[in-house]
Amino acid sequence: MAIRDFTLNTVIERNARLYAGRTAFVFEDQTVTHAQYLARVQRLAAGLRAAGLAPGERVAVIAQNRPEFLDLYGAAARLGAIVVPVNWRLSADELAHVITDTAPVLLLADPAYQAACAALRARCPSLKTCIGFDTTESGFMTYDELLRSGSDARAADVSADAGTVIMHTAAVGGLPRGALLSHNGLMAAGMQLIAHWRLGPDDVNLGMLPMFHVSGLGLFMAVLQAGGATVLSARFDPSAAVEQIQAHRVTVFAEFAPMLGQILDQAATRGADLASLRAVSGLDTPDTLARFHAHCPQADFWAGYGQTEVSGMATLAPARERPGSAVAPPCCARSVSSTTPTSRCRSAALAKSSSAARWCSRATGSSRKIPGRPPAAAGTTRATWVASMPTGTSGTPAVRRPRN
Amino acid sequence: MAIRDFTLNTVIERNARLYAGRTAFVFEDQTVTHAQYLARVQRLAAGLRAAGLAPGERVAVIAQNRPEFLDLYGAAARLGAIVVPVNWRLSADELAHVITDTAPVLLLADPAYQAACAALRARCPSLKTCIGFDTTESGFMTYDELLRSGSDARAADVSADAGTVIMHTAAVGGLPRGALLSHNGLMAAGMQLIAHWRLGPDDVNLGMLPMFHVSGLGLFMAVLQAGGATVLSARFDPSAAVEQIQAHRVTVFAEFAPMLGQILDQAATRGADLASLRAVSGLDTPDTLARFHAHCPQADFWAGYGQTEVSGMATLAPARERPGSAVAPPCCARSVSSTTPTSRCRSAALAKSSSAARWCSRATGSSRKIPGRPPAAAGTTRATWVASMPTGTSGTPAVRRPRN
Repeated sequence: MAIRDFTLNTVIERNARLYAGRTAFVFEDQTVTHAQYLARVQRLAAGLRAAGLAPGERVAVIAQNRPEFLDLYGAAARLGAIVVPVNWRLSADELAHVITDTAPVLLLADPAYQAACAALRARCPSLKTCIGFDTTESGFMTYDELLRSGSDARAADVSADAGTVIMHTAAVGGLPRGALLSHNGLMAAGMQLIAHWRLGPDDVNLGMLPMFHVSGLGLFMAVLQAGGATVLSARFDPSAAVEQIQAHRVTVFAEFAPMLGQILDQAATRGADLASLRAVSGLDTPDTLARFHAHCPQADFWAGYGQTEVSGMATLAPARERPGSAVAPPCCARSVSSTTPTSRCRSAALAKSSSAARWCSRATGSSRKIPGRPPAAAGTTRATWVASMPTGTSGTPAVRRPRN
Repeated sequence: MAIRDFTLNTVIERNARLYAGRTAFVFEDQTVTHAQYLARVQRLAAGLRAAGLAPGERVAVIAQNRPEFLDLYGAAARLGAIVVPVNWRLSADELAHVITDTAPVLLLADPAYQAACAALRARCPSLKTCIGFDTTESGFMTYDELLRSGSDARAADVSADAGTVIMHTAAVGGLPRGALLSHNGLMAAGMQLIAHWRLGPDDVNLGMLPMFHVSGLGLFMAVLQAGGATVLSARFDPSAAVEQIQAHRVTVFAEFAPMLGQILDQAATRGADLASLRAVSGLDTPDTLARFHAHCPQADFWAGYGQTEVSGMATLAPARERPGSAVAPPCCARSVSSTTPTSRCRSAALAKSSSAARWCSRATGSSRKIPGRPPAAAGTTRATWVASMPTGTSGTPAVRRPRN
């Protein structure tokens, strides 16, 4: 009998038991059940292990959203390794920073980014193997080769406090800093969303934000934790989004302006009622929110204030109740104190002013504490304090109960 | 601006802002709003501080359920102090053990228990002041005097990892051992229930289990964390329970056999449909569960396996889906790894066997690590491993979604 912490891998294993035949995610014409997701994760974990990825080591990925991206998060969690998802919009210099900053031993890349990655090999001596999705650049292993190379899919003994993702974010010192997110942190952030949105196994998330961003990853993981499904898109397309919402009875998604407005334009053109939606989170204009609530009276838009360093949302409030604000105190602080203090990151903390309606979150999570590297510049901590917007309402609003 | 962890006091303060005019709890003919609950907690905290209760120190209470019991949990949390709720069914010797084991500086008692407490003073030199509810024994301060004595109601700077309750439980070594429960532990256990039951501010808990027991405290706190209300009873009475369910539109409660059966008997006699109920947790017989589901088709009975050391439920499953079992893997492990390892308790851990359907929880939380006292006897850890029941179903059951 093994004694294990509850990690992201545990979620995937649990889902494979409780919801085996139900959908974990959809991508284009491919549907993957929770049982199949575990099998994919196991297969990839075996391949990564055979390629030399050890617990605590990093595996970088630079790719559009694709099923293998989701597999990679699961497989790294299974091995106790850390995914470094790279923003594919970065310049070559920025890419070089992220890679040298995290010293991955493996790197997976879409064809479009393979040349840039190959050029980094000389500057990143840790990098043992580059793996290519689809076609491969010279010197790259194919993804199929990686999968075929492994046979040992056993789950490592992983602490829930261990980091499992490094996401680069706020460039306070001029360069983006890597926030190391732990299993506990991501799952606590997921629990916040599960609690506020009452997510369950019937929920379907429209995953159109990039999986290298905490919003895309966070909602995927929260819905996964609730036993639900994600409809994954390589990139945002408003016409496809409306089709997917209708075809898959999507209940939730996360967005940044102008995505929601474009979806509403498409829905109006097509006469699509979007009646399956329950909750949308993000940041958008008052006009778009008014249009959304008029078009989808059954749903709530939740204005969120998130930070990568806190594994997702720091504050979240239904826009109907608190217009102009993203400030509803969370139901627990774990989403804002959840980056791990144990290795590369310092902890994040929640700050609360003496006035009731104003919240701040302090996030000092960064990659600056990598052993042997210089500490963060003076002033960084102060610079990472970010005040929330003042609340737009007072009195005693009840937080809206999302409809099922 | 103060930087604070999110503690039980934060929950009470948040509720006073978000749900100020809504009901926090009802007791007999008294209704206390969330704003009033905070005011009561502040007043009692000021009194306890004036009486010399410092952070980390213990305040014992031996009383039937009453509003002041709830106030005490909040006030101790506000001060960073620790409540020792004593089982009023204990013998004089057992009471003496609990008191000397935890060395409280203050003690509050119902009239019925004041003589026994007074007799303990010589054996408990830490005890500065005994406070009596209602009438008082000679040498006891009255509760009103306590409230009047204080003026400083400020919240202390309390870590969410700090202990806030010591509950005595499994007498593995012959004497009950105190499990120190932290803010984080209790709130994580609450988050589990919030997620599984989709608790929200509209929920109403029938609080008829004693507040000295983790089931009574845990569901009160989970519903409080969700912004909901508790209808508190001094003791269980099936006739009163049916009246309260109907009068207050109770949605959830926790029970142990034969409470539910007696409630169903009363409901049948009165023709009460109990239509407001959504979820009931506990342990009961198959016959009673069948009667419950027949009488309340809109509700689910959730069989729970709980441990004080894990701050509440270790496993929980809807009985319709998994008859004969309490085994649904939790949505996060915090409810089973939530006792604090920092002071008197060792951590609890979740264990999972290689077969999918069997879970165990290991709880080594005890008061044995009080500084200067001997460590736990050899074999204690092994003895606190408790295997779950095997699941009654196989295949791929979906966890039932509670109805709203």
